Amino acid sequence: MVSIEQFGDNVRWTAAEKKVARRAFDQALERHLSTIIAEAKRMMENVANPSDLWGVEAYLTESRKTVDRIYQFRYSHLLRVFSVLMRDEWLNEADLVGLQPEKIADIKRSPEGLRRMFRE
Amino acid sequence: MVSIEQFGDNVRWTAAEKKVARRAFDQALERHLSTIIAEAKRMMENVANPSDLWGVEAYLTESRKTVDRIYQFRYSHLLRVFSVLMRDEWLNEADLVGLQPEKIADIKRSPEGLRRMFRE
Repeated sequence: MVSIEQFGDNVRWTAAEKKVARRAFDQALERHLSTIIAEAKRMMENVANPSDLWGVEAYLTESRKTVDRIYQFRYSHLLRVFSVLMRDEWLNEADLVGLQPEKIADIKRSPEGLRRMFRE
Repeated sequence: MVSIEQFGDNVRWTAAEKKVARRAFDQALERHLSTIIAEAKRMMENVANPSDLWGVEAYLTESRKTVDRIYQFRYSHLLRVFSVLMRDEWLNEADLVGLQPEKIADIKRSPEGLRRMFRE
């Protein structure tokens, strides 16, 4: 089994693919952040006591750490990142149009196998 | 100069004073928490982007740490705690009615001198 580093380093991205990848990445991040903001606003509106309030804090801290951990734009890691985002439904196949079929297949196939390497 | 520990240990609280102290402490905490909740709700309503959101998180974390640090109900530290709460206007003189005049005088006089010991 090849390591994830070798896996990533072997992937080549054309200029056109890099544009698609950047756009897909940004869209996933924007969707993810919008969802977090909406949920945090909903939680805060329902805060009735300090315990509720610290629950919002914990949700925000956890969300920020998750976003920081997942959204790292490096071409050598991008298939792994995209497979996680597909699994978690922040990306869909339409976002990947323009990538080579092999990359799309990897992204769709790999989340389960890559999960352990991604420390999740 | 006596240490803060000696200072606190020398203070005697009657049963009636303990009731007043507990009530004053709880009222200050409730006022403080209510203010934090109101401010957090106001901030969250105005969140328009991720940067605003993480600003709310930082405010909550800082507020929780401040509350945890200040509100420690131990008779040996209570004059010091009350002097800080008076300085920050979470307590007022009306809350202290029922305490011996010497305690009230200490509470009103000591915030500046005690600040360094309170690590603020």
